[in-house]
Amino acid sequence: MNQILVGSRLHYLVKEPTVFLLNLSVAQNEHQATSNESIEISPFQTVDECAVGQSGNRLLRLNALPGELTIAYQATVELHAEEVDSTNLGEVSYEKLPADVLTYLNPSRYCESDKLFRFASEEFGHLVPGYSRATAICNWTFDQLTYTPGSTGPTTTACDVLLQRTGVCRDYAHVSISLCRAMGIPARYVSGYAVNLQPPDFHGFFEAYFDGRWFLFDATRLAPVGGFVRIGTGRDAADVAFATMRGDAECTGMKVWANEQQSGDHLLDPENVQTAVSSA
Amino acid sequence: MNQILVGSRLHYLVKEPTVFLLNLSVAQNEHQATSNESIEISPFQTVDECAVGQSGNRLLRLNALPGELTIAYQATVELHAEEVDSTNLGEVSYEKLPADVLTYLNPSRYCESDKLFRFASEEFGHLVPGYSRATAICNWTFDQLTYTPGSTGPTTTACDVLLQRTGVCRDYAHVSISLCRAMGIPARYVSGYAVNLQPPDFHGFFEAYFDGRWFLFDATRLAPVGGFVRIGTGRDAADVAFATMRGDAECTGMKVWANEQQSGDHLLDPENVQTAVSSA
Amino acid sequence: MNQILVGSRLHYLVKEPTVFLLNLSVAQNEHQATSNESIEISPFQTVDECAVGQSGNRLLRLNALPGELTIAYQATVELHAEEVDSTNLGEVSYEKLPADVLTYLNPSRYCESDKLFRFASEEFGHLVPGYSRATAICNWTFDQLTYTPGSTGPTTTACDVLLQRTGVCRDYAHVSISLCRAMGIPARYVSGYAVNLQPPDFHGFFEAYFDGRWFLFDATRLAPVGGFVRIGTGRDAADVAFATMRGDAECTGMKVWANEQQSGDHLLDPENVQTAVSSA
Amino acid sequence: MNQILVGSRLHYLVKEPTVFLLNLSVAQNEHQATSNESIEISPFQTVDECAVGQSGNRLLRLNALPGELTIAYQATVELHAEEVDSTNLGEVSYEKLPADVLTYLNPSRYCESDKLFRFASEEFGHLVPGYSRATAICNWTFDQLTYTPGSTGPTTTACDVLLQRTGVCRDYAHVSISLCRAMGIPARYVSGYAVNLQPPDFHGFFEAYFDGRWFLFDATRLAPVGGFVRIGTGRDAADVAFATMRGDAECTGMKVWANEQQSGDHLLDPENVQTAVSSA
Repeated sequence: MNQILVGSRLHYLVKEPTVFLLNLSVAQNEHQATSNESIEISPFQTVDECAVGQSGNRLLRLNALPGELTIAYQATVELHAEEVDSTNLGEVSYEKLPADVLTYLNPSRYCESDKLFRFASEEFGHLVPGYSRATAICNWTFDQLTYTPGSTGPTTTACDVLLQRTGVCRDYAHVSISLCRAMGIPARYVSGYAVNLQPPDFHGFFEAYFDGRWFLFDATRLAPVGGFVRIGTGRDAADVAFATMRGDAECTGMKVWANEQQSGDHLLDPENVQTAVSSA
Repeated sequence: MNQILVGSRLHYLVKEPTVFLLNLSVAQNEHQATSNESIEISPFQTVDECAVGQSGNRLLRLNALPGELTIAYQATVELHAEEVDSTNLGEVSYEKLPADVLTYLNPSRYCESDKLFRFASEEFGHLVPGYSRATAICNWTFDQLTYTPGSTGPTTTACDVLLQRTGVCRDYAHVSISLCRAMGIPARYVSGYAVNLQPPDFHGFFEAYFDGRWFLFDATRLAPVGGFVRIGTGRDAADVAFATMRGDAECTGMKVWANEQQSGDHLLDPENVQTAVSSA
Repeated sequence: MNQILVGSRLHYLVKEPTVFLLNLSVAQNEHQATSNESIEISPFQTVDECAVGQSGNRLLRLNALPGELTIAYQATVELHAEEVDSTNLGEVSYEKLPADVLTYLNPSRYCESDKLFRFASEEFGHLVPGYSRATAICNWTFDQLTYTPGSTGPTTTACDVLLQRTGVCRDYAHVSISLCRAMGIPARYVSGYAVNLQPPDFHGFFEAYFDGRWFLFDATRLAPVGGFVRIGTGRDAADVAFATMRGDAECTGMKVWANEQQSGDHLLDPENVQTAVSSA
Repeated sequence: MNQILVGSRLHYLVKEPTVFLLNLSVAQNEHQATSNESIEISPFQTVDECAVGQSGNRLLRLNALPGELTIAYQATVELHAEEVDSTNLGEVSYEKLPADVLTYLNPSRYCESDKLFRFASEEFGHLVPGYSRATAICNWTFDQLTYTPGSTGPTTTACDVLLQRTGVCRDYAHVSISLCRAMGIPARYVSGYAVNLQPPDFHGFFEAYFDGRWFLFDATRLAPVGGFVRIGTGRDAADVAFATMRGDAECTGMKVWANEQQSGDHLLDPENVQTAVSSA
């Protein structure tokens, strides 16, 4: 498996003592091996790292004083995602879902699945249950929405997006997650780095649960799922904001990258829907 | 400490094979000792019990066939809640909050704290930080809302309630939780049995986090906090619905009770705000 | 042209002096000739009638004292709606629409057309402009929604309905109106009596503007457009509520009817979309 | 009475043939006499002017070809607003309100008064009915909100603003209008030019109805009510947008002015609430 160099560099103008919570470190799990990882804060200061939840999220926390602040993260990641033939991946019946997976059927702040039962049922209820139904939801989301930077904001929900028909990666994920949950398919939000994403940025995509495992999906088709490096997992974007601040600081610049050591030609085409990628 | 007999009896008419997920068993934690617990399903069938999350939630799951169904739960509970003088209980600064508590600062489906930062800050920003600020939020919620059964439904959120000014226990909790989170105070929803609640029913209240512990609050003032028996803990009511069904079943009757073995006179008056009750 | 007997009988329990505003009289315009009209209030009292707006709306106003109240209205109506071949009815360009028609392109309380420009454009933008596009909007609305009494309430809007996919006649009209306006087709709400409506009730439908005239549409297909007797015209249901009260009164019963003197066989089938009915 | 020079100059880059609907001409009514009025379009073309509604609104309509477009309007206005002692101005009871005024009790797109009955009643229900109650609503709105350019957008409603607590002039007006209507006081939106407004711009304020007349209010306190020159009157901002386009054109610049011929010292202080200004 090839190596991916990921990283991000964030610049802030801190106006008063400000606590930063950062979700930008690569998650720790068996599907991605990290090496040469570094986090540098300038001016120098120590960072508190803590694990959050069961999915390998690593929260960085620091206390910044007024002035300029740069946060630079990088790591080399080896992905061990498993590629599976999706043909026979089935939905898990409600009575057999593990208890900790059931949580991902509940509605969340930006994924109001409880308002979309009939909507989902009428659009997708006639389809054969299984992995292909989540694919159908992604295709539908891709067809319905127009990717439009700036068209949504931090409080925009899946229902808002279903009406306005525009959004960015986070919104595509929220819509797909909401429709999956409304159909009884557990689904959750994933933030990460993405090889070949243009323009480079943090990416938001999602996972749905079939046959006892989580599989990656991305309704935006902006980058190959096989090149996704997980940062955090949550119910929706509220759980994995890359930076949350308490105090007063202004973001003055940001750079994000995810480059394969060799060409990414072997990565799955974003439109290849036959091969499922299990990474959690 | 006195003993409390809690229980619930739910009747359904099941119209097609239906999976039930039930949150009605008393949670398992060090603050409440349960004995003589029983769950009876009629017609007889086994129930699958599973633990959910870190707070002792116990999910019951059963697969009902068409026909009448009765679910009867009861238990004897000894509460070991600790009563503390609330005077000096302080808010925990953002940089010191445990990682698993940070989650309860995030907005959730029915608690859109991300839309209420300025609202909360203008109403409560001038108050001294600490336990008394959560009390002020409860008092404000109690004053603003009129308890009105039937005025809200399953998709009603804290923002809806802030505008319509009516709600039931679940709505009072959602409003208080949202305002706490918007002020930087971690807060979470608790469902439970409540001694002296009139009319007897499942109850919804909440917890906020001070000085390293969770404390119980109830903006409805309908029953003494010291007589609350926890069923489940979650981000909001979405996580601890007492019954979720997949299939088709109609609730035809319900009885809920929570009785102290002796008189409840020793229980704190709902309006006593000096004594904090730590139960988690 | 045949005669239609319409009427309504409303019973209230008035608990304190209450002003009633009633929209239940047949509108006065050249398309419907009214005879034998009577309005009886019991216990007896006089009613103030006033014309509202430009479309023949007649508002009845009365001041009720505590006690039982019955309002009985009836009239015989001869409809002079004109039936036209819809084939060549065109949309009027923005620059040629009469000023008083332009108003009906604006969003209103229950018709948030300003949020649906892209939605409407993607669903209907590829269709040939003209009467048939409004027909397509009605068909789409009929297909998407399930008529479900009780599923919506007085504050439900078109956007709510588009997400929940259920509603009653008023909601069908609001959705269709919103989509027409978003496409640049002036549209307005009409309340009325409807021959052959089952169960008999006040009905809500709508009008859209083509080639200088208003034409009737009804996305519910519950009754033939040719048997609609107009009560009031407005931007949406907010303008023509059949009863608005200021005080305290409870509705204890209601009967509404609209019967043709002879069989209604000659009325257009609700699904006949070739023949347009111009009634304003 | 002094003379006010008002005007506006709008620059557009028109990308395809575009119809413009403009609400920027001074309304024609007995309270404001206009002279030296001119509207110039460059490149030259004729403009279609039409009266809309009953309040003197004058809609300008033009058909622009691709290229640069400048619309320049100016006029000299003499205001004949009547200043009255507000002390005894009373609310008009529901049964005596003129039919065409009743319309302004209905909820509208950006003024969801139907959702705010209890809210308004609890905040203002205890106050003495009359002009001073609308003043109290303005004061409350001024106190609750923070004037924040850019914090709201074209689809923001009064309910949104009540939760987020920020807005601009249009939002202040929508909140005040909604609360007035919910209290049974007819209220409507007014757009106009405003002497001493800083920075100069089109302004949005509102009117409420007392003792048979409409009186001007402005919850923003940004400029003296006595220096307001009316452009248009409507249910809310949806009815009097200064420019609506159908086609594709980008606004590249805008200048608005309203200058008194002599010093405006005689104008009422925005915080003088004793003197009511009747201008319609």
